[in-house]
Amino acid sequence: MSDVKLDFGRPDRIGLEEAIFCQGKTVQHLATILSLATKERRSFLLTRLSADQYAGLQPEWGAALDYDTLSRTAVFGKTVALTGPARVALVAAGTSDAHVLREAERALAYAGEATTCILDVGVAGLWRLQERLEEIRRHPVVIAVAGMDAAMPTVLGGLLGNVLIGVPTSTGYGVATGGQAALHAMLSSCAPGVPVMNIDNGYGAACAALRVLRALDTAAKAVRHGGG
Amino acid sequence: MSDVKLDFGRPDRIGLEEAIFCQGKTVQHLATILSLATKERRSFLLTRLSADQYAGLQPEWGAALDYDTLSRTAVFGKTVALTGPARVALVAAGTSDAHVLREAERALAYAGEATTCILDVGVAGLWRLQERLEEIRRHPVVIAVAGMDAAMPTVLGGLLGNVLIGVPTSTGYGVATGGQAALHAMLSSCAPGVPVMNIDNGYGAACAALRVLRALDTAAKAVRHGGG
Amino acid sequence: MSDVKLDFGRPDRIGLEEAIFCQGKTVQHLATILSLATKERRSFLLTRLSADQYAGLQPEWGAALDYDTLSRTAVFGKTVALTGPARVALVAAGTSDAHVLREAERALAYAGEATTCILDVGVAGLWRLQERLEEIRRHPVVIAVAGMDAAMPTVLGGLLGNVLIGVPTSTGYGVATGGQAALHAMLSSCAPGVPVMNIDNGYGAACAALRVLRALDTAAKAVRHGGG
Amino acid sequence: MSDVKLDFGRPDRIGLEEAIFCQGKTVQHLATILSLATKERRSFLLTRLSADQYAGLQPEWGAALDYDTLSRTAVFGKTVALTGPARVALVAAGTSDAHVLREAERALAYAGEATTCILDVGVAGLWRLQERLEEIRRHPVVIAVAGMDAAMPTVLGGLLGNVLIGVPTSTGYGVATGGQAALHAMLSSCAPGVPVMNIDNGYGAACAALRVLRALDTAAKAVRHGGG
Amino acid sequence: MSDVKLDFGRPDRIGLEEAIFCQGKTVQHLATILSLATKERRSFLLTRLSADQYAGLQPEWGAALDYDTLSRTAVFGKTVALTGPARVALVAAGTSDAHVLREAERALAYAGEATTCILDVGVAGLWRLQERLEEIRRHPVVIAVAGMDAAMPTVLGGLLGNVLIGVPTSTGYGVATGGQAALHAMLSSCAPGVPVMNIDNGYGAACAALRVLRALDTAAKAVRHGGG
Amino acid sequence: MSDVKLDFGRPDRIGLEEAIFCQGKTVQHLATILSLATKERRSFLLTRLSADQYAGLQPEWGAALDYDTLSRTAVFGKTVALTGPARVALVAAGTSDAHVLREAERALAYAGEATTCILDVGVAGLWRLQERLEEIRRHPVVIAVAGMDAAMPTVLGGLLGNVLIGVPTSTGYGVATGGQAALHAMLSSCAPGVPVMNIDNGYGAACAALRVLRALDTAAKAVRHGGG
Amino acid sequence: MSDVKLDFGRPDRIGLEEAIFCQGKTVQHLATILSLATKERRSFLLTRLSADQYAGLQPEWGAALDYDTLSRTAVFGKTVALTGPARVALVAAGTSDAHVLREAERALAYAGEATTCILDVGVAGLWRLQERLEEIRRHPVVIAVAGMDAAMPTVLGGLLGNVLIGVPTSTGYGVATGGQAALHAMLSSCAPGVPVMNIDNGYGAACAALRVLRALDTAAKAVRHGGG
Amino acid sequence: MSDVKLDFGRPDRIGLEEAIFCQGKTVQHLATILSLATKERRSFLLTRLSADQYAGLQPEWGAALDYDTLSRTAVFGKTVALTGPARVALVAAGTSDAHVLREAERALAYAGEATTCILDVGVAGLWRLQERLEEIRRHPVVIAVAGMDAAMPTVLGGLLGNVLIGVPTSTGYGVATGGQAALHAMLSSCAPGVPVMNIDNGYGAACAALRVLRALDTAAKAVRHGGG
Repeated sequence: MSDVKLDFGRPDRIGLEEAIFCQGKTVQHLATILSLATKERRSFLLTRLSADQYAGLQPEWGAALDYDTLSRTAVFGKTVALTGPARVALVAAGTSDAHVLREAERALAYAGEATTCILDVGVAGLWRLQERLEEIRRHPVVIAVAGMDAAMPTVLGGLLGNVLIGVPTSTGYGVATGGQAALHAMLSSCAPGVPVMNIDNGYGAACAALRVLRALDTAAKAVRHGGG
Repeated sequence: MSDVKLDFGRPDRIGLEEAIFCQGKTVQHLATILSLATKERRSFLLTRLSADQYAGLQPEWGAALDYDTLSRTAVFGKTVALTGPARVALVAAGTSDAHVLREAERALAYAGEATTCILDVGVAGLWRLQERLEEIRRHPVVIAVAGMDAAMPTVLGGLLGNVLIGVPTSTGYGVATGGQAALHAMLSSCAPGVPVMNIDNGYGAACAALRVLRALDTAAKAVRHGGG
Repeated sequence: MSDVKLDFGRPDRIGLEEAIFCQGKTVQHLATILSLATKERRSFLLTRLSADQYAGLQPEWGAALDYDTLSRTAVFGKTVALTGPARVALVAAGTSDAHVLREAERALAYAGEATTCILDVGVAGLWRLQERLEEIRRHPVVIAVAGMDAAMPTVLGGLLGNVLIGVPTSTGYGVATGGQAALHAMLSSCAPGVPVMNIDNGYGAACAALRVLRALDTAAKAVRHGGG
Repeated sequence: MSDVKLDFGRPDRIGLEEAIFCQGKTVQHLATILSLATKERRSFLLTRLSADQYAGLQPEWGAALDYDTLSRTAVFGKTVALTGPARVALVAAGTSDAHVLREAERALAYAGEATTCILDVGVAGLWRLQERLEEIRRHPVVIAVAGMDAAMPTVLGGLLGNVLIGVPTSTGYGVATGGQAALHAMLSSCAPGVPVMNIDNGYGAACAALRVLRALDTAAKAVRHGGG
Repeated sequence: MSDVKLDFGRPDRIGLEEAIFCQGKTVQHLATILSLATKERRSFLLTRLSADQYAGLQPEWGAALDYDTLSRTAVFGKTVALTGPARVALVAAGTSDAHVLREAERALAYAGEATTCILDVGVAGLWRLQERLEEIRRHPVVIAVAGMDAAMPTVLGGLLGNVLIGVPTSTGYGVATGGQAALHAMLSSCAPGVPVMNIDNGYGAACAALRVLRALDTAAKAVRHGGG
Repeated sequence: MSDVKLDFGRPDRIGLEEAIFCQGKTVQHLATILSLATKERRSFLLTRLSADQYAGLQPEWGAALDYDTLSRTAVFGKTVALTGPARVALVAAGTSDAHVLREAERALAYAGEATTCILDVGVAGLWRLQERLEEIRRHPVVIAVAGMDAAMPTVLGGLLGNVLIGVPTSTGYGVATGGQAALHAMLSSCAPGVPVMNIDNGYGAACAALRVLRALDTAAKAVRHGGG
Repeated sequence: MSDVKLDFGRPDRIGLEEAIFCQGKTVQHLATILSLATKERRSFLLTRLSADQYAGLQPEWGAALDYDTLSRTAVFGKTVALTGPARVALVAAGTSDAHVLREAERALAYAGEATTCILDVGVAGLWRLQERLEEIRRHPVVIAVAGMDAAMPTVLGGLLGNVLIGVPTSTGYGVATGGQAALHAMLSSCAPGVPVMNIDNGYGAACAALRVLRALDTAAKAVRHGGG
Repeated sequence: MSDVKLDFGRPDRIGLEEAIFCQGKTVQHLATILSLATKERRSFLLTRLSADQYAGLQPEWGAALDYDTLSRTAVFGKTVALTGPARVALVAAGTSDAHVLREAERALAYAGEATTCILDVGVAGLWRLQERLEEIRRHPVVIAVAGMDAAMPTVLGGLLGNVLIGVPTSTGYGVATGGQAALHAMLSSCAPGVPVMNIDNGYGAACAALRVLRALDTAAKAVRHGGG
């Protein structure tokens, strides 16, 4: 079972790098992957890297990993300088959703994209969202992160025409435990055109945003080169 | 199995009349109940009386039943004149929720309470709710009816300090089918102090409102008679 | 992600203070919030503050926090003297539900409301509830807390006309694990007009009770000032 | 696929006759079974025989079938005279549960056992159950039938030491749709020793009662013949 | 919240003593209950007493508690000598179900009833059940304990006419996690008349058996005193 | 949307022909497909062809379709003569499962494979299965079809070493409604090595059997040509 | 309840027109809405307009409604000429998913956007998708529609870097009934950055696509006016 | 409860040895079983033997157990030399599924069967599967292991005619938590004839493969001895 196989061709194929999903992998699996990446001179984003897994890797690989506890992500082998204005707004209903927002922020930063992060704009205190609305509107892509009843993306989707991606979180208890209530609320949103990621999938939302940003770049380029 | 037993003592006991829940009862069961009520000179509200059940009862009992198709309710043996200002606001997110709102309206009217009904104030078009906010605020009790993602009660609960009761509806499709998404969203609401009824239970919400109105009457009476 | 945003305007808006829901927040998040509250001279109720989180806060903030282990709540920056008779009865089916009852008790006390707490009146031993019935009846608002099959609120709702709010608890095992059986039983109650909170949501039930008490105060005041 | 195989040996083996569960069988399947029974001079109880299936059988087999619409059962080839006192009390919370109660009644009658049927003793009107309690107590076996929140068996189980069997029904709507809420409430009952049948399974409850009655007969016989 | 209220009248009322369900209770709650019982000279069975709870009680109450690790039960204040032949057979499909079987065994022993315990008779190795069939048949009441697909009670119910009570267990993984698959299989059993307890509810099965044994005793007594 | 695209290459690729899954297709869709097949001189098995869809096709295509009501399958454009002994035994627990068994029988016949069909061998009457055991054993592949508690495949899997494929059916009510109880029971079977198809998927089971038969043919051929 | 309130301001606010979701509305509700739209000289897309609802509207409004049976949509008051190349590819795994694809096609056409529709590219016959891959790649936005196991979007997402939106459909039976299996598979996709709509929500996918197209237009315009 | 009963006759009956399923068994249970096996000179495979259980057994039995941490399996009392070519390919979508693949590998090795193990061929990077396709095809039986959306078996089943067995894994989060999404996707696969095991049931898949291999051996033997 030594044949770990990484998808190094993914960036060329779809413009997105493979990230290492660490849940369910042993420390030995992860070490094998990092060795392979080192050999191939590749960098990686690691997601869902638990504190325990990180501790297991640290003696050998700690120096090469930029680990973030809140989002349980690590960057391996790459330093990215963010330039240009933020094109993605990351908006979370509560502080308890911050780990998901951070995962998206880190994944976008890894891909070179700056972001604007806005916490605590849940609609039970509507003025907080209204106060930041114009700032949010300036970003072509908005990622709306919310747990519990996840009412915020519906309000946002009715106020903004931006590209909007919903990420339900597992924040909550009782019927909200695990995030199913938030997921179902987002999927049933009365606001039109708000697609949704899996629960707590900040990384996936970042990738969805990157697909849109790539399309925007392509569109702009086409005009510049004589299209449109 | 002829011993149908009605709870005629309920009004004296708790100030609320028993309603006849018709789902699952045969037309013969219902006719027996109406005969019994006639003999005892009682009136009744019938809920969940399907068009088919009503058609079966009509030859004999049609004249005595004030039937409403939308809410599937019928009033038997009573005419109530509503006086005084509405103390309950019935607020629905969409027109598709109207049948539940109507059931609550009919149950409150049966108990002598006028209501204010407001449709189509879902928060995907936030201005509609904001436009009616001051009108809603004037009612001590507000019943918020919503299906799909049921985001409206959260926004309302964050803007008003009134007594607020949520009623999820079965409006929706996919993950919202049957109203579970709306129920779970309401139960997980970030707005504080919004208790929730079973899906589509407009009648129950009316009864909950009546309990509050009775308490208000008692409080006012206590003051008038030298209390407070 | 430093912009934690508290809803300080909530009391003026709806008469209820924001509580800090601590689940999912890091100790650092919580410390930031407490600093902010200190700066703004605000007090807070903290809910779902785990023993671990409390231990993390203790070195710096322990003296300022009145922590209760059973309910996992803490009061920050406020001492309230309760005066006047209890207007809310807190009634629990079993001792295993005590933590939820206590959360409601603490939230009401924080808002200045005295309560009467009654444990162990599950209806498998019906006499226990019957023995306390008249005492319960004297409170305008009753919060009924029960896990497992949650049969007690149905019996209570058939015997009392008071405002009644149900809180299902996660007490139980097998099909009752997590409180879904209790929640569904309460929502399906044959007793009329008993709205329900999310599982274990004692805080929410307290807020719902406060909404009713505020309405009672307003009604009484209106009479005193020439209404009614 | 002509080899329908009936379990004619069941009565000798376990003292209970096989019943024909008609759901999902074609009219042709049923006709084959009735022919076979005729040839073997056997009688049968048919359960879940829909009105449509019965209509399909009627031309050829109608005269031989004693069909009951409410319970969707038919007796084939047998007339039983019931003698002796009722040893099983069938108790239902509401009239909407009558079809399940009737199925149990019919199955017990088919086996020669008289029953006492009591409707409408749901505990939201507690006095109705209390009024009949002593009558119920006289039966060694009690079958408690209830839908929605199914609180009645818990109250009954706390008041009586009789053998008690719960049958949840599909009566209800919203979270009670299909009977899961009633089933889960019964399984989670705080009253000790109340086993439960599948939703709407009146026939199964009758068989469980028959197993107990057979044991009672055996115990009595043992004493008479010098045991105990 | 000091008013813990025990149901000391239960034995007189229904012939079954209250057991203390320890899950969700603090050690302090349990100590209060044991003090109360001591004062009233009562004995108790404690169920779901975790190792941690027991450790907390041990310094003060250890000597008075007969604790069993496998079933997490303790007997307080009573020693029962079992006499007479076993009237209940406890039959489990696998060794992994032994903790549930033991809970039933302990609860029956507490009530003075001897039992026959048979492990490892799952029907994937059918001969094991067949080998013990005649032995099982000699007991008027059989409790069948099984997890995973819970096929054994169906086979047993088709071979024996005894009173049969099913107890699904949480043994299993994947779709069997938590015991829902076993519960649903038992409730859907093709064998007639096998009522079912909540998942892992060995105590409840024991109580259900006791209800039957009491009825058998009453029937025998009636004959002895001139009945039958 | 005229570009219906059939997978004509499937037989060459994997040795199995595509079947037309008719559920959710309009009559016009189906007619287009049949025209295409006619043009390409292809034959097809149609599955889940409802009586209504068949009626819609009949005027134009009725003569070309060999329709079977019970299994809702039709054969288009092919007559197969079955030769050789049956290599697959189709075994169903009850007559209510016959439609699923028939779907598998028809799909295997379409592929040229004879089958042995055995109904009514549910293990609540164990002797029926035991009576046919040696006959079943003679088939290299056994498809076990069962609804409700689906206990039969477990017993069979413990008695036979044959290739065994389970098919749960939607037969049943209450918790068995829709076949989830049967599916979960089969997946949790204590008998080793019994893989399972989707609920009511007789066609899929036939295909799984065909994959095994092809492997058997290949193995035999290999020996004949000098292998093994 | 006459105050139906439409969100006529939505296009100005977010660039998307409100569509009338017809499920749960009475014919009278719909007629009121159409009258209102006529008065305000507005056009509308109606979604989930059942054949029965359409038949009820036809006498008065039939001429004004362009109804499509497959997608259950109608256009009211508008004719749009599509110009320019298709910028959205609509890709469905099977013909049974065609109604959802058509709903998206109609909603995009209503907004003036041409589309390319590709049916029957499910990955059980991989070559069909591979054959169309380059054609699909030419569209900046791809909507992938699939039921049952919904494996196609994962394969597509791994081959293309385009903006990709998944729509699960309710096509399927057994565990796929209602589309939950497809929804969960899409949400759990291993392909990065594929957000998902509610089951069967073709309209929502169209709106999500429109949000992206608007962003592309804005980006292109910015370049043309001196940006980038 | 000392009568642990092992199914030593299983190999003779069905050609498969009983494995000891360790979950839910105490260390004492396991020690009893190992003693019994020693006495009877039997060997065993132990599955789901947790690290804690293994640690408990180690002092006495460690030397006799060949324990594998990843798969949580141990071989007791047997050393098998694998000869001949691998007839089963074990194919996993990701490294996180390796523990399930290993369990199957160990179970097959215990039965003397060599296997080919292939990791990381998830179809989000389709080329990885395509690269290994011909190698996979050479094995008569293929076990496809996948979590999350489990799309790989569908693609594989459309490309290969081999005997194919699906094993969903619990790898994933959000809606994939616990493996239900993978299970449902596999059961709903559009590829024909792919039966499925319970979640994470690598052992069961190995047994299913062994049933096929035994049938192949029998078929080959039959030819050699003059059949076919």
